[in-house]
Amino acid sequence: MQRYKLGWTVGYTRDPSEPPERFVAASVPGAAQLDWANAEGWPDYWRGENCMQFESMESVYWVYESKISKPELADGQRLYFVCEGVDYQFLIRLNKKTLHGQEGMFTPCSFDITDDVTDGDTLQIVVFPHPDSGDYSNGRCEAKESVKPPCSYGWDWHPRLIPSGIWKNAFLETRSAQHIVDLQFDYMLEENLSQARIDLAIELSETMSGSLEWSLSDPNGDVVDAHSVSLESQQIVDITSDIFDPMLWWPNQQGEQNLYTLALSLHGADGMVQDRKSKRVGFRRVQLVMNEGAWDERTSLPTSRNVPPMTIEINGRRIFSKGSNWVPPEVFPGVIGEDTYRPLIEKARQANFNMLRCWGGGIVNKDSFFNLCDELGIMVWQEFPLACNQYVETPEYLDTLNSESRSIILRLKSHPSIVIWCGGNELFNSWSRMTDQHKALRLLNKNCYELDPDTPFLPTSPVMGVGHGDYLFRDADGVECFEKFQKARFSAYTEFGCPGPASVDYLERFIPDDELFPPKLGGSWETHHAFNAWDGHKSSWLCPEVIDHYFGKAESIEELVFYGQILQSEGYKAMFEEARRQKPYCSMALNWCYNEPWPTAANNSLISWPCEPKPAYEAVKQSCRPILASARAEKFSWTEEEWFEAELWMLNDSPEVIKCDTVEAYLQFADEEVFALAWDFEAIEPNSNSRGPTLRYKLPTFDAQVFKLVLRIEGKQDWQSEYTFCYKPLNPLMSD
Amino acid sequence: MQRYKLGWTVGYTRDPSEPPERFVAASVPGAAQLDWANAEGWPDYWRGENCMQFESMESVYWVYESKISKPELADGQRLYFVCEGVDYQFLIRLNKKTLHGQEGMFTPCSFDITDDVTDGDTLQIVVFPHPDSGDYSNGRCEAKESVKPPCSYGWDWHPRLIPSGIWKNAFLETRSAQHIVDLQFDYMLEENLSQARIDLAIELSETMSGSLEWSLSDPNGDVVDAHSVSLESQQIVDITSDIFDPMLWWPNQQGEQNLYTLALSLHGADGMVQDRKSKRVGFRRVQLVMNEGAWDERTSLPTSRNVPPMTIEINGRRIFSKGSNWVPPEVFPGVIGEDTYRPLIEKARQANFNMLRCWGGGIVNKDSFFNLCDELGIMVWQEFPLACNQYVETPEYLDTLNSESRSIILRLKSHPSIVIWCGGNELFNSWSRMTDQHKALRLLNKNCYELDPDTPFLPTSPVMGVGHGDYLFRDADGVECFEKFQKARFSAYTEFGCPGPASVDYLERFIPDDELFPPKLGGSWETHHAFNAWDGHKSSWLCPEVIDHYFGKAESIEELVFYGQILQSEGYKAMFEEARRQKPYCSMALNWCYNEPWPTAANNSLISWPCEPKPAYEAVKQSCRPILASARAEKFSWTEEEWFEAELWMLNDSPEVIKCDTVEAYLQFADEEVFALAWDFEAIEPNSNSRGPTLRYKLPTFDAQVFKLVLRIEGKQDWQSEYTFCYKPLNPLMSD
Repeated sequence: MQRYKLGWTVGYTRDPSEPPERFVAASVPGAAQLDWANAEGWPDYWRGENCMQFESMESVYWVYESKISKPELADGQRLYFVCEGVDYQFLIRLNKKTLHGQEGMFTPCSFDITDDVTDGDTLQIVVFPHPDSGDYSNGRCEAKESVKPPCSYGWDWHPRLIPSGIWKNAFLETRSAQHIVDLQFDYMLEENLSQARIDLAIELSETMSGSLEWSLSDPNGDVVDAHSVSLESQQIVDITSDIFDPMLWWPNQQGEQNLYTLALSLHGADGMVQDRKSKRVGFRRVQLVMNEGAWDERTSLPTSRNVPPMTIEINGRRIFSKGSNWVPPEVFPGVIGEDTYRPLIEKARQANFNMLRCWGGGIVNKDSFFNLCDELGIMVWQEFPLACNQYVETPEYLDTLNSESRSIILRLKSHPSIVIWCGGNELFNSWSRMTDQHKALRLLNKNCYELDPDTPFLPTSPVMGVGHGDYLFRDADGVECFEKFQKARFSAYTEFGCPGPASVDYLERFIPDDELFPPKLGGSWETHHAFNAWDGHKSSWLCPEVIDHYFGKAESIEELVFYGQILQSEGYKAMFEEARRQKPYCSMALNWCYNEPWPTAANNSLISWPCEPKPAYEAVKQSCRPILASARAEKFSWTEEEWFEAELWMLNDSPEVIKCDTVEAYLQFADEEVFALAWDFEAIEPNSNSRGPTLRYKLPTFDAQVFKLVLRIEGKQDWQSEYTFCYKPLNPLMSD
Repeated sequence: MQRYKLGWTVGYTRDPSEPPERFVAASVPGAAQLDWANAEGWPDYWRGENCMQFESMESVYWVYESKISKPELADGQRLYFVCEGVDYQFLIRLNKKTLHGQEGMFTPCSFDITDDVTDGDTLQIVVFPHPDSGDYSNGRCEAKESVKPPCSYGWDWHPRLIPSGIWKNAFLETRSAQHIVDLQFDYMLEENLSQARIDLAIELSETMSGSLEWSLSDPNGDVVDAHSVSLESQQIVDITSDIFDPMLWWPNQQGEQNLYTLALSLHGADGMVQDRKSKRVGFRRVQLVMNEGAWDERTSLPTSRNVPPMTIEINGRRIFSKGSNWVPPEVFPGVIGEDTYRPLIEKARQANFNMLRCWGGGIVNKDSFFNLCDELGIMVWQEFPLACNQYVETPEYLDTLNSESRSIILRLKSHPSIVIWCGGNELFNSWSRMTDQHKALRLLNKNCYELDPDTPFLPTSPVMGVGHGDYLFRDADGVECFEKFQKARFSAYTEFGCPGPASVDYLERFIPDDELFPPKLGGSWETHHAFNAWDGHKSSWLCPEVIDHYFGKAESIEELVFYGQILQSEGYKAMFEEARRQKPYCSMALNWCYNEPWPTAANNSLISWPCEPKPAYEAVKQSCRPILASARAEKFSWTEEEWFEAELWMLNDSPEVIKCDTVEAYLQFADEEVFALAWDFEAIEPNSNSRGPTLRYKLPTFDAQVFKLVLRIEGKQDWQSEYTFCYKPLNPLMSD
């Protein structure tokens, strides 16, 4: 088996019966619009308002062409054209004859072209205009009849910029006539986890005799199971085998990320190797189990149902899920590679995260994403590409969703990191108006059950008892996120946000100098989501009036960003830690959002595109430490002479016992630090919290806009915490 | 094709390796225990405490035997043994050789025994002891590893009496070698209902040539579509055809129950008829659509999902579902026939019902039930046989559930009356502890979606927003069902009960004379559910202390029953009418329960076994009239000189407009009637209510325990209503 790269050009036409007038060099994988922009010398789409230039390229047919140099084929060898993914609807043509037509970017295809191709022939891939339902009530509605990820039609953190083209590899490949077409790996763990019953299902290219050899190596590279199966006129091979005491895969901070390697070789009747395949796999049991206390909730009669389970249990151990919502890391998915994913996922691990929710408005990631999550212990909540729309129930839509979802499940199910399949984002809310009866969701549940029955399935997020929101530090009624979360009682918080501006040096890279300060509606700030980003919220996501409220009018971009970033950091700390304090009834804290597909001027994200952490990233990292001292203050802003109050907690998400110790609380006013309280806490069980006393301290008079609360534990630097609060004098001077 | 009845005997053994010592005559269909009891001359199981005698027959193997008289077979004819249902796990043996083993009572089987049988051979059906999970925490838990209907293990209205045996027909049948094995009828209605695309899938017994003729006749008997399809070496035949302007099927009081007849004949290559099949079908579109107002419910952030849809829409028209919960009409399902079902379903129609919820704790009914529901316009909410248990997730259980559920769906899906498939009863509540993640429910969703995608599926009842309960006129805190329902806000009330005693002459038939009055704990009253029937409710279902509370200590069985039945009647009226007043947000009112499997002394049922309506039946019938004047009083009991208050309403569930008119309200105190209020109401839209003024009247002094409110509309006898209330003097005399 050998791969041959193809050289591609691309051009566009508005009339599919006419060829493009001009072809330019194409990057594959990539995006047709980017190729065109490069050839035309367009400025970077991510600066200023340049992205708008791309709207002129909407609704065209992109035509890719490649001249084939036919490789020499050994006896019995076949030549395949393999196309791993085209975004979104396309035809594949060989010498203008159509080989294949497809709707959907997640289903790969390949063709034996040995007998149809001669040297110098032309392969064409014709990409249709992006899906357009004809409903323009909101950008995303244009995608409601398709499995096209809707975020590219415009979202509160994504420009309207709709990619098209060959977004995964497309190449020639020589294969033995006898080769492995498909390999499915399944396993069932014994209740006590001491044994795994492995099930391999192999499809061969043709009915053949010979043998199939396979081995399984453990994380140390030791072969733990190896067999040879003789084939007698078979095209389908089913193999079962038992592995004893498998080394289990665990999420980050719960144990090792043990991964095994499965290797297969296919031998013909003469014993010669015809094909090889290998696959990395892991063993773990995942369940969604009922949140502690949730069965005890019984209302008076008439009574409805209890809430659904939202606690992740891995290998029999309940795990508090900490992490964030993942969005596409690039506007053009074709440019995403392992190098895009790795720093982001490494930072997720470093942030003490154990889960990423791959949100349904974006693409389903490439394989390297899941490989990294397997390696780094990041559990993946994987949604299908549906978000915030009332998708149609036509046979055409359901057919595409069926084939795309089956491709996605079969491609990803053997990754131990996949712990939840989910139908999509916010489908059971009034802005989407889908319900449990919608055929799309019944179909997805069915496909997941058929193909991967041991992984939990959720129809959407939020389900009953799960919370989405809020996305503000301080809402229009003046309620702070501190209070909002403390009054909430949800089984899981799978989206909650706190906006913050990007750093100044970062803003300078894409906001033109003359627009930089003060930020204004319209122009680059608005294009980059600082204003009018969120329906009905003119000031989001920069929210300058909230910054003003606490710290007065900013005099410079530096001051604005400094205070805006404090709000984001302290807001996130308050919400992450409150969600953890609500454990065990609460079982998840996933903020909205982790990353972003292009530079935003202000956003709920923790990391600026492509991978530049904001101060809030560091704050969240602190709040997600497995063990920490935590303070529960009911608000952010305090006034001179007011009694400051904060309840002390020890939070423990780890599988370890914490020995008894002492938390000392100090307050820092300007340059002065005062001791406020000491709390001798008892030993704390694994995955349990301990609630301590409430610190009360009458705020003195000092000259600063903020003060700090510091919690120290002697010799336990890792567990110490620090919080910043806003301070208001009783009689503020009029600002000049 | 001809059927030959078989004669059966039955005996039992506790050791399956030993044959029964004795055989007695068996009725097929029937129940082995009943045959035995008959042969032994046991007294009626439904009188006194006789049912307890049957416990001695638990856990035995029942062996049925039949000697075969082999019919003469024409050339090419084959002989089949057909067994439509055996309760529950069984072997079929021919001359002691096992032909077949099966778990599950809902999957029929048949065997070509032509070449295996000679005259005088013996057929045996060995029925295993009833399923027993080994969990005896509650009778029903014994059924948690099986698809055996759990109610027979004991319920609050069902004795512990667990039937076994051949509960459907079992016979010999001659068939042409070429015959129709399976016929599936599906159709899709155009959005505007003007056209139905019919899809017939026919499986033949063997690959054959010849022809298949089929016709469809409309409700008038006119053939509206007829085709002949020639067969060329086929075993599977798929036929599609279009019917224009089909006469639609409607539920009771919404339109006609139009039914079509599909007739097929199979012809061999020589043109001779080999087989015939016919099927009655109907055309309707059913959807569960969002309840009016339910999308407008949006809580502050963080927010969860909106409630799921619970409004039945038939042929594009929203319909308020009125009806009741159906339980098995007999303890022994084998004795149920069309004559059991017909009077009950006719009474459901007469009660102005349009829906029965076939509750998951009982059997899935025989075909005649669904035929009657089709004819009489009763929509069926059909549950699979799961109730109030945490069913296991073993491969064995899931396999049985898979085959049983597929059999049920394929047997019933072409009945237009089937409007909801549901996983089972109260599975997502703390006493069952199943969740959305349970494989049984994911499997049922999958099977329903695969086999009958256009019929809604609910995982259980209640789902979010749907209410079950209460089941008392007055609860332990003194809260009446009047208040409880008026304070509730649910999208559907799919269970709510109000208990009442059976009538005196009825009680006399099964409660021994010496136990009749006063009713006492233990003995026949308790066996027949008057006491200790419901977990933790010692006085249910007779609730004598509630009757005492309103009317004082009863001096005779007649007095006790009279007042107990008033409470049941008035309680049901209050709840049914309140649910209707909460329309459109509320969309269903289904009381618990309609019927019962044996005589209960007191129960929430409307009809005593087998089909004797209680006074509450008449009361509910009044409250379910499509159009009526309705009074909303907040309580049942009023005191002398108190201001009586009742809000007047006009309720309209019909598809008709009500013209403006006048409701006159009168109060009746002992022999006096006073005019209290007149309400001139405006015209009322179809399927809409109108809320009127509140009547206020200071209660006078009179000598009676009750008074009445009568609502009259001149010339509209059908719309008039009457309510009874309890009256208490200010200074009651001490009772002597």
